[in-house]
Amino acid sequence: MPISEVLKALANDRRLQVLAWLKDPTAHFRPQVDGDLVEDGVCGQLIAEKLGVSQPTASEHLKVLTQAGLIRGKRIKGWIFYRRDEARIAEVKAAIAREV
Amino acid sequence: MPISEVLKALANDRRLQVLAWLKDPTAHFRPQVDGDLVEDGVCGQLIAEKLGVSQPTASEHLKVLTQAGLIRGKRIKGWIFYRRDEARIAEVKAAIAREV
Repeated sequence: MPISEVLKALANDRRLQVLAWLKDPTAHFRPQVDGDLVEDGVCGQLIAEKLGVSQPTASEHLKVLTQAGLIRGKRIKGWIFYRRDEARIAEVKAAIAREV
Repeated sequence: MPISEVLKALANDRRLQVLAWLKDPTAHFRPQVDGDLVEDGVCGQLIAEKLGVSQPTASEHLKVLTQAGLIRGKRIKGWIFYRRDEARIAEVKAAIAREV
């Protein structure tokens, strides 16, 4: 994916907010029944709730971030849990620093 | 301007290309009659020509970059000459590194 597409994925207040929350999930989300917030990630439904948007709207934002490789989803019992891909995010920051 | 808006300004291949060319104007543009490429910046018309787009399309991209503070325009004899605002670009990179 070209860097311009990754920048598009980042260029949204809600998506930046989600990335910021996922830096420290336990500080921002209540414990989950299934899935450890840090190990497994945060359930998409909790993210939708905290953003105050509908499930489809949240899913779209999470899809954009996932396609850009910034977060990864993991399916547990029918739910998808999301965490940051720190290695990829570090690469993206380095590419921005180099190319801009 | 919030960082999400600056990211939108960056999230375009042509605008990234212009920023890259303006890092080293003498390597990418022919000498100008008016305005030193490095001291004064590169004439918008030369940028349009090199992008291979119409003047209005180029102007729109240059406007977006200018509004985001990434480049600065200087008017000389009716033409506008553009150069990077390196201090602002460094701030933006630092903000991205911190907030993403």
